[in-house]
Amino acid sequence: METVNVAVMGHGVVGSGVVEVLLSHEKSIAKKVKNEINVKYILDLRDFPGLDYSDRFIKDFDLILKDDSIKVVVEVMGGVHPAYEFVKACLEAGKSVCTSNKELVAAHGAELLKIAGEKNVNFLFEASVGGGIPVLRPIAQCLSANDLYEVFGILNGTTNFILTKMIKENMAFDDALALAQQLGYAEKNPSADVDGHDACRKICILAALCFGKHVYPEQVRTEGITKITLADVEYADIAGYVIKLIGHSKLLEDGKITADVYPALIPKSNQLAGVDDVFNAVMVRGDAVGDVLFYGRGAGKLPTASAVVADVMDCVKHLSARKYLSWDDGFDGYVVDSESVKTRLYVRAEVDDIIDAKSNVFASISDAEFIINPDNNNEVAFITPVGVEAELKEKIASVKQLKNVSVLHVLD
Amino acid sequence: METVNVAVMGHGVVGSGVVEVLLSHEKSIAKKVKNEINVKYILDLRDFPGLDYSDRFIKDFDLILKDDSIKVVVEVMGGVHPAYEFVKACLEAGKSVCTSNKELVAAHGAELLKIAGEKNVNFLFEASVGGGIPVLRPIAQCLSANDLYEVFGILNGTTNFILTKMIKENMAFDDALALAQQLGYAEKNPSADVDGHDACRKICILAALCFGKHVYPEQVRTEGITKITLADVEYADIAGYVIKLIGHSKLLEDGKITADVYPALIPKSNQLAGVDDVFNAVMVRGDAVGDVLFYGRGAGKLPTASAVVADVMDCVKHLSARKYLSWDDGFDGYVVDSESVKTRLYVRAEVDDIIDAKSNVFASISDAEFIINPDNNNEVAFITPVGVEAELKEKIASVKQLKNVSVLHVLD
Repeated sequence: METVNVAVMGHGVVGSGVVEVLLSHEKSIAKKVKNEINVKYILDLRDFPGLDYSDRFIKDFDLILKDDSIKVVVEVMGGVHPAYEFVKACLEAGKSVCTSNKELVAAHGAELLKIAGEKNVNFLFEASVGGGIPVLRPIAQCLSANDLYEVFGILNGTTNFILTKMIKENMAFDDALALAQQLGYAEKNPSADVDGHDACRKICILAALCFGKHVYPEQVRTEGITKITLADVEYADIAGYVIKLIGHSKLLEDGKITADVYPALIPKSNQLAGVDDVFNAVMVRGDAVGDVLFYGRGAGKLPTASAVVADVMDCVKHLSARKYLSWDDGFDGYVVDSESVKTRLYVRAEVDDIIDAKSNVFASISDAEFIINPDNNNEVAFITPVGVEAELKEKIASVKQLKNVSVLHVLD
Repeated sequence: METVNVAVMGHGVVGSGVVEVLLSHEKSIAKKVKNEINVKYILDLRDFPGLDYSDRFIKDFDLILKDDSIKVVVEVMGGVHPAYEFVKACLEAGKSVCTSNKELVAAHGAELLKIAGEKNVNFLFEASVGGGIPVLRPIAQCLSANDLYEVFGILNGTTNFILTKMIKENMAFDDALALAQQLGYAEKNPSADVDGHDACRKICILAALCFGKHVYPEQVRTEGITKITLADVEYADIAGYVIKLIGHSKLLEDGKITADVYPALIPKSNQLAGVDDVFNAVMVRGDAVGDVLFYGRGAGKLPTASAVVADVMDCVKHLSARKYLSWDDGFDGYVVDSESVKTRLYVRAEVDDIIDAKSNVFASISDAEFIINPDNNNEVAFITPVGVEAELKEKIASVKQLKNVSVLHVLD
């Protein structure tokens, strides 16, 4: 049995988890990959005295780059810089890289995959979407005989926890966020989660993998959950829906795609509706296989670390490139303006006179389905029929009786 | 771009689907695997005149075996013989084999994997469990950094369709079965489905993959759904459960396992409870990742065919062995008698006098939770506390007031 040296860059939550999984599963991993995996270096600017493996910490990236015995590098530092420069240098030096860094992959995935392909090494990032849930590799490998046409899911555990508390326990957004922070699910500055940026990076990666062209975060219309109120949750419930933060991408007939992150009303009968708390789920639709769903813990130290380590094991078993993950750059206008595409919308608005407002809504949107909530006398809520989003919004805006209008997508 | 010749053995539902997917996706598949895949032979004893590809049919297996240009063989004949002899001969001749044949893999998987390993070729069978749902490869690859300790799921679409009709539409078993037959979901002789044999083969394969040792169908205690009544469905509902046919295998502390197929009460909050109609779902539990669920269409021509074709594509991309799938033979007593293991049981029985019967149940099983159904005056139903199954059954049998006793497992 040979020894393969690896380096871990970053010793935060995921990085320490990677080292923990590699050390605690040393024997079973060696049996599976028929090689011993040795963590030779851990790169971190901080000191970690008192650990069993404190002697392996280094602060100089060049030690990793210039050590030819390091075949696989784990990047779990997070952020784009210097992760991008380090990963690029490693790939160019002929080292395989495994990362959980969704920000990096969403920003530079196409380029890094291209370098990996040229250098005949692996660039793997299973943990970047869905944490420990197998998603990317099954899509790339097991569904490869399908033409995929839609991918969407609950991609952020923090916001799903907050929405679950709002739905199941009638907790207000601010209280649910405070609880999520208290439990360690949300950061002190929760913007990356609650404003949808984290989900945005993940739908970029999923869309790139499913449809073959890179999608950049700035191409994705991204809306978070901060405006969702308990009133919305209640109307949705009455109408047979739950509100979930959804990352969504769909292939259009002309080869272009839509890509969005938004809170949406999901029918209670949909498998995604039952995905609660910090759990994530990704639904993929293919022409032969129909609907396929992957479900599990989308974050957390050990689940995420286990996905990174599985990538490392895959690299060790196949030290030359696998090449099954690759996508090209997009073209001008590849991601279309979602407002030009058909959808249904949920609308809630304040009104002075319900009867008057309703008749004016009907005059503008004849098939609107009103949601009756007898507790609210100065509000209307309804769901529009299918229409081009921009046109639906124009019609809604034309009803002058509606004030403080909230609009959400409905995903049927 | 080179051409790789493949042969398809069997032109039934799945076989014709495999040819259809290969031909209809010819270009996108060639782009992904960087080779053209050519279906050179289709082996079937029947004649299929009038097809676009009628000229490719052969009746003599030796033509495939002796043709060195055939690198990959698809076995979709079903049954153990002559599938076993054909597959073995192909592997020994250095050809990779992809199959959807769960009966074959459950009966001879360990041996065939060993031959494939020795010959440095692939023996792949993703479609044998969960049809088009990616299950086996994600378990073997993406969850490889975990020590897995439990796997269970809804593994048969026909029985799940029948149970769904019983649960959602109050349809009696016989009527639901007749409907399933009418829709083509169930065979004229439905025994393989309703008696649990199909689910049994699948849990054999899942247990072998998760825990590393072959499990033979005759080692699995297998019980079907023919005895489930609408009364059971109703009691389960009142108590907060649904009844599903479950394949279940669990690693015990001494390295042995249990393996069962049985109808079980599943809490409505469990992800499996919402898996309806012909859909399947597999739940895997690992020490690092926690619960992971795979969901989708577990059968059907195109979903199953798409999984077989994905295996073929994998073979074409890696014509030398991948070796990530392998397991050993078990040892004497590896699969333990499930009656020696702890569980909870649901019990329904006819009684002459409810009050008398209940007090006697309490005397024998003090923590029994009765399920109250005011419509039934000559019946009791209750759920036992956790106990060794054989001991619980003894206690139940000791209550002489209970007649025509039905017992089901409760999976919490």
